[in-house]
Amino acid sequence: MTIITLTTDFGGADGYVGTMKGVILGFAPAVRLVDLSHEIAPQDIRQAIHVLRQAAPYFPPGTIHLAVVDPGVGSARQPLLVTTPQATFVGPDNGLFTFALEQPGAQAYVLDRPEAWLPQVSRTFHGRDIFAPVAARLALGMAPGDLGTPISNAVRLAQAAPQRIGNDHVVGSVVHVDRFGNLISDVPAAWLEDGAWVCQIADREIAALASTYAEVAPGIVLGLVSSGGTLEVAVREGSAARDLGVGVGATLTLRRIQWRNSLSKAAIP
Amino acid sequence: MTIITLTTDFGGADGYVGTMKGVILGFAPAVRLVDLSHEIAPQDIRQAIHVLRQAAPYFPPGTIHLAVVDPGVGSARQPLLVTTPQATFVGPDNGLFTFALEQPGAQAYVLDRPEAWLPQVSRTFHGRDIFAPVAARLALGMAPGDLGTPISNAVRLAQAAPQRIGNDHVVGSVVHVDRFGNLISDVPAAWLEDGAWVCQIADREIAALASTYAEVAPGIVLGLVSSGGTLEVAVREGSAARDLGVGVGATLTLRRIQWRNSLSKAAIP
Amino acid sequence: MTIITLTTDFGGADGYVGTMKGVILGFAPAVRLVDLSHEIAPQDIRQAIHVLRQAAPYFPPGTIHLAVVDPGVGSARQPLLVTTPQATFVGPDNGLFTFALEQPGAQAYVLDRPEAWLPQVSRTFHGRDIFAPVAARLALGMAPGDLGTPISNAVRLAQAAPQRIGNDHVVGSVVHVDRFGNLISDVPAAWLEDGAWVCQIADREIAALASTYAEVAPGIVLGLVSSGGTLEVAVREGSAARDLGVGVGATLTLRRIQWRNSLSKAAIP
Repeated sequence: MTIITLTTDFGGADGYVGTMKGVILGFAPAVRLVDLSHEIAPQDIRQAIHVLRQAAPYFPPGTIHLAVVDPGVGSARQPLLVTTPQATFVGPDNGLFTFALEQPGAQAYVLDRPEAWLPQVSRTFHGRDIFAPVAARLALGMAPGDLGTPISNAVRLAQAAPQRIGNDHVVGSVVHVDRFGNLISDVPAAWLEDGAWVCQIADREIAALASTYAEVAPGIVLGLVSSGGTLEVAVREGSAARDLGVGVGATLTLRRIQWRNSLSKAAIP
Repeated sequence: MTIITLTTDFGGADGYVGTMKGVILGFAPAVRLVDLSHEIAPQDIRQAIHVLRQAAPYFPPGTIHLAVVDPGVGSARQPLLVTTPQATFVGPDNGLFTFALEQPGAQAYVLDRPEAWLPQVSRTFHGRDIFAPVAARLALGMAPGDLGTPISNAVRLAQAAPQRIGNDHVVGSVVHVDRFGNLISDVPAAWLEDGAWVCQIADREIAALASTYAEVAPGIVLGLVSSGGTLEVAVREGSAARDLGVGVGATLTLRRIQWRNSLSKAAIP
Repeated sequence: MTIITLTTDFGGADGYVGTMKGVILGFAPAVRLVDLSHEIAPQDIRQAIHVLRQAAPYFPPGTIHLAVVDPGVGSARQPLLVTTPQATFVGPDNGLFTFALEQPGAQAYVLDRPEAWLPQVSRTFHGRDIFAPVAARLALGMAPGDLGTPISNAVRLAQAAPQRIGNDHVVGSVVHVDRFGNLISDVPAAWLEDGAWVCQIADREIAALASTYAEVAPGIVLGLVSSGGTLEVAVREGSAARDLGVGVGATLTLRRIQWRNSLSKAAIP
């Protein structure tokens, strides 16, 4: 029972996601369907990348990830399939699968076999007409090479990378704001394991890293290790995004604390 | 493994949908459950009709569509079952299944066998107490005639139909606004295939039909073929509903372009 | 095919719920997954209790209810498992399962076998790292005693109970506001079956109980029996929460009508 996950910016109201599931189950009645998110902000490819990248490693090998965030639907952008040793990804060739393409052993295919799609392909709903049938055929065991042609120039989005400056400074940015208002950064927590660090964000200085929410009082801003292994800025029982007034793209500047400085001072937000 | 789809105005917070699924799985453990929408605006039967009508054709034959948008729950309105050659529909007899009743070979049944329901039927949650068990029993192979009695007077909602006026004019209306702010009309795109047409909506004139979003610049209003095969008014990477300030019920007036007129002029929104 | 239900305050956008499902299916590929609610207000344990308590009785025996509303994640609060003759509950030991603990035959276990969890346990996402694998192993048949150690001091939340004062007065409170703005109280409708009662809430007096929405005109406030068997204050085709300006915690005061008083007067809102 292969798993197909679904990630879209379709929302829950319009029945678009259910329609894709109807198509999939028509081809592959025994497949397991798991929703990752359908609340991606409309056409926000980077948010979808974040969600997929966090979730995909927790699925069994062979899982098929179908994702549709597709500002260019109906244009010349190609339908894409990406295989990695761990999983398969199906969706538009617009950078959505950048992180998959960067994995060792990844192979991209342009989907160019209309006989594998629905007989009628609309201009605006390739999720239903192209990607759902392709994902279903993969689940049934069809080989990627029978659904498309290998390519080497699939679209990759440039993403700002966190930087280490010398031994004592790190600069990163907020890549995701979750429902709780937690600010998830791209700074690997492993970079901060050695010694103690102060994180400056939005004119506030906070201690990085507390180990858990529970170490501070409610309402206090803290840095901790996110569930994805990066630095996260949070407010216990509150919203860091709201309290600090920042969102995706905000800069975090970290400096190593010299022991002459007072850690306790830095920890006061 | 029969599929049961669910469409309600229950939202996701209260656990009502999950409760219905618990009831269904208690009767029919192997059934496949697919959510179409639970974000139908409270008691908006017409929105539910639109979602069901768009999605149902993409499900395999034999699918059971359970829908509960039910302003009259607890009143004299009857519980209903409708069979068509393609699918079966279960829910309140309030017009929700108008489009199914209009299909050739459709047959309605009033659900009048309480022994097929939960032992206790509440006044306010027939989705759990009547419709879920009935859908589950259908999935197990019980015949509609064992769950209800055929009737010929099931409720149908009158729906404004698009009109052709002579060869050169069409009048229709917006029947759905989706998450992206796209205005989905009831005008069959097939009516507009011959020649070029201008669409007037909310004091704007736009060209109908562009073939895809990608043909215009971001922010431009355009007409195109919706995924359901009707005229759709959209704004590339924007919201037509917001930019034009209209919603469900808005009138679209189309006229055929005489070639003396300038198409390019009409295309400027 | 054991059922695992999921109830969280994670929302639908971030992929957290999908990630938990990936973990579960990795262990237990054949398990049935049912979402109860992921729109619990952040860290609102009482709302989660209400949803779980209403839904759980409608699932087949043996169902596993996984719930994560967890303000104290990463603190000293323990991971918990509760068995009842009907079902099993997995989540944080913070009172979320108070109603399960109160059932005859309930047994709590602290989850203290890290070998049953994911190899790496984050500080902030025990739903993924502890509760999902434990629920999956339960579904595979592992005994609670192999996942934890019996305890007798699991956390219970004190909950205000409705009160009968003599034969003619009842005081209760609103415990839930659903999507429709219905005010669900904790007053058993059975207490009100004998005779006629007036309900005072937010300086309004309404008749309790009408039997259905359909008995009053749209816009009128009424009392009726909720789908959970308690008194519910509703507005036909409207929102009682908005019209009365009250929410969870609001007090309802009921008094038995003496037949000298005019019932019709009391019914005028």
